[in-house]
Amino acid sequence: MLQLSDLQKLYDKIKSKALEDYKTFLKFPSISSEPGKSKTLKSCSDWLANYLEESGLKVDIWNEEGAPIVFAAYQDAGPDKPTLLLYHHYDVQPVEPLDEWNHPPFDPTIIDGEVYARGAQDNKGQCFYSLLAVTSLLKEYKTLPINVKIIIEGEEEIGSPSLPEWLEKKKEALKADYLAIVDVGMRGKNSPAVTLGVRGMVTMEVIAKGTKTDLHSGTHGGIAFNPLHALVQILAQLRDSSTGKITIPDFYDDVKALTDEEKKVFSLDFPDDEYVRMFKQKPTGGEKEYSLSERAWLRPTLEINGIAGGYAGEGFKTVIPAKALAKISCRLVPGQDPEIIGKKVADHIENSAPEGIDISVNINPGMGSPLRTDPHSVIANSFAQSFQEVFGNPAEFILEGASIPISAKLAEASGGQPVFVGLGLVDDQIHAPNEHFGLDRIEKGYLSIGRVLAILGEKNRS
Amino acid sequence: MLQLSDLQKLYDKIKSKALEDYKTFLKFPSISSEPGKSKTLKSCSDWLANYLEESGLKVDIWNEEGAPIVFAAYQDAGPDKPTLLLYHHYDVQPVEPLDEWNHPPFDPTIIDGEVYARGAQDNKGQCFYSLLAVTSLLKEYKTLPINVKIIIEGEEEIGSPSLPEWLEKKKEALKADYLAIVDVGMRGKNSPAVTLGVRGMVTMEVIAKGTKTDLHSGTHGGIAFNPLHALVQILAQLRDSSTGKITIPDFYDDVKALTDEEKKVFSLDFPDDEYVRMFKQKPTGGEKEYSLSERAWLRPTLEINGIAGGYAGEGFKTVIPAKALAKISCRLVPGQDPEIIGKKVADHIENSAPEGIDISVNINPGMGSPLRTDPHSVIANSFAQSFQEVFGNPAEFILEGASIPISAKLAEASGGQPVFVGLGLVDDQIHAPNEHFGLDRIEKGYLSIGRVLAILGEKNRS
Repeated sequence: MLQLSDLQKLYDKIKSKALEDYKTFLKFPSISSEPGKSKTLKSCSDWLANYLEESGLKVDIWNEEGAPIVFAAYQDAGPDKPTLLLYHHYDVQPVEPLDEWNHPPFDPTIIDGEVYARGAQDNKGQCFYSLLAVTSLLKEYKTLPINVKIIIEGEEEIGSPSLPEWLEKKKEALKADYLAIVDVGMRGKNSPAVTLGVRGMVTMEVIAKGTKTDLHSGTHGGIAFNPLHALVQILAQLRDSSTGKITIPDFYDDVKALTDEEKKVFSLDFPDDEYVRMFKQKPTGGEKEYSLSERAWLRPTLEINGIAGGYAGEGFKTVIPAKALAKISCRLVPGQDPEIIGKKVADHIENSAPEGIDISVNINPGMGSPLRTDPHSVIANSFAQSFQEVFGNPAEFILEGASIPISAKLAEASGGQPVFVGLGLVDDQIHAPNEHFGLDRIEKGYLSIGRVLAILGEKNRS
Repeated sequence: MLQLSDLQKLYDKIKSKALEDYKTFLKFPSISSEPGKSKTLKSCSDWLANYLEESGLKVDIWNEEGAPIVFAAYQDAGPDKPTLLLYHHYDVQPVEPLDEWNHPPFDPTIIDGEVYARGAQDNKGQCFYSLLAVTSLLKEYKTLPINVKIIIEGEEEIGSPSLPEWLEKKKEALKADYLAIVDVGMRGKNSPAVTLGVRGMVTMEVIAKGTKTDLHSGTHGGIAFNPLHALVQILAQLRDSSTGKITIPDFYDDVKALTDEEKKVFSLDFPDDEYVRMFKQKPTGGEKEYSLSERAWLRPTLEINGIAGGYAGEGFKTVIPAKALAKISCRLVPGQDPEIIGKKVADHIENSAPEGIDISVNINPGMGSPLRTDPHSVIANSFAQSFQEVFGNPAEFILEGASIPISAKLAEASGGQPVFVGLGLVDDQIHAPNEHFGLDRIEKGYLSIGRVLAILGEKNRS
């Protein structure tokens, strides 16, 4: 059986080439949300396919017309050994505001062992250590302790619009006993964590239209209904400013409370002052009646993710814009259905239009259901054991406030018992300027995945 | 005495060259609000100076280090003849959103007698016919019926930050009996108007800051206070959505009601359905208890002119932005002081900051007081007579909702009785894409200014 020391020895041998490969992976500006990015997504997926194939994995490319999905498999461990499906994504978030980056986002820069680049953590960094474990073990030993399947998509950051169709088509190929979605984090550098659930998500765009063109705010001020006034009025009343609660009728109706047993398993403590230290601001968002962890994990949210309208650049433009828009998202918890919540929010907003303003809401198709898994499952406990060995500290069972919209469908298609793992830290600046990830975590991630393969190799298929 | 027929004859002679000159003037992208525009402003002012000097006017350039101010004078009519000071500006508004223009904004395009370009009306078109009258008469007759002074600044659209200093310095040069600010409009193609007042203005920027960097809206949703939520909450409560009134304490305190005599003089009728026809939307903005004209002319406003924060481009970014900003402006009526109102608004907004969000308000220095002039003045009546001759219709006495921030200071420095005139129409799209102005109005403007010089030439100085 592969021990931690074996993995460590192998790492020392491969690490300088690994760092080069990691940097190459980060250099692809694989931003899925920007139109015209299909060529870059293809280059990045080609690189990944080649990287996996070289180690001896059987590689298949799906969705070649869109953002390619890279699928790789090792099935020579035999039918009595379990199969683990690993999920990753190679697409990244946009980089705006670009002028707030200290280094170019697609030219990885290492400072004090931290790699700064868009995707350094989310998800290229986490993807990379996972692939590194599988490929280097296969190259070194020509065999793996269990069957392994890997799926890496290129549209996670836009809500995985193509993947559901492929999950349906490739059900057989995807069959697995366990599913590890390696795209989450832990609550502290030395506190490994097994994440037993994510929030669901639905996003939408709200457009407020006034007159047919922009108007002069002097000549028309006091006559035209300003779409920006309509928008702030509508958005402001979605939230009760004294309780922090979302005021959309029936928004919380289907929220299930955590059971007493779940409360015992989860680490629900997170101190406010630790948050202030990290983010230079008090964590005053969300519902006032709940604790920090409850608000981040167990309660749904509605956030405004962007507003644009009129002129907000240098100088001043005395304009009443013809239209204004806002982007909003809701995070959902077990019991809530993204389609139902999306419709409730959209209907409520559309019904709030003042006279003289047309309001329309477009719900984005890339929604995802919330997902929770069993704290007593083989996969959760195998990762907990692996993390404890690698970090020298017991793993926490936690939840994740962010969404992996595809996770529920992935669990269903593969039939695998799901778990979310990852070595992200809350101040990695994912989705923000100066995203970074530590080389120490590339190493620990590699060790953890390697040990999980070994631990699962000791179990028989149930 | 110069009659309308003399002016008409001269126009037919000069009009083809005039059109070329007008187009040249429009081609300078003299956007004062964009940083780095000083070279363009200088080229444009050089062209103007040369144009005026060629006709025999004495030209002086002020503020050469910044946006140059072009000053020109003809003083050979003699000391018993009155002096008219004409005010214009050669700077223009930004052109965003550029993709909504049907033609490039600085490549004038003529369709059915309308010239499409940024500045076609505001103020290059109106400036041009005024200069055309003065220069062509001087060239043709080597003399003018009265003394004429012309001031053309390059910072009107950013609130004339440099002009006050020069008005102070050049008081003697600016001395005049009458001041015509040729930068306003009329209510219909065949309804010339003399505008007896403008609203004042104060503008500001509101910045809402949350955590030190942008955050992921999944991980941090329900924890961090989103600056966009803070901003919409604060902006929404500035306005009572049922009455349309601004809710800032004491905002309306100093507003003076119109006297009964003023009410008799002003044309206060403007039908709602005419507005709907022109702008494809009901005029539902402003205070519900007042009529359309009252809301546009006699009541102060607070408008949001721009909001930016988070990601509002193509696709979706699940971000809680570190900061968000809004630009707002207030239009003011007689009795209201822009400094006092600016402070009231800023204080109220800063005091509305929720816990966890820092709110700051920066008041822009380019503010302007409201101004009203006497309906029985020589200058108002001379323009009324001239317009009646040129249009064949009586001139209306109206007010203007827009601001010419510098007008109060200009009246004070020159000592001239002020009046606002211009041939703008409400659907000229000034400050908006596809701004346009008619060649028929270039001609009528030229005739009107020409006739005013003649009419004033018949009067002795009082």
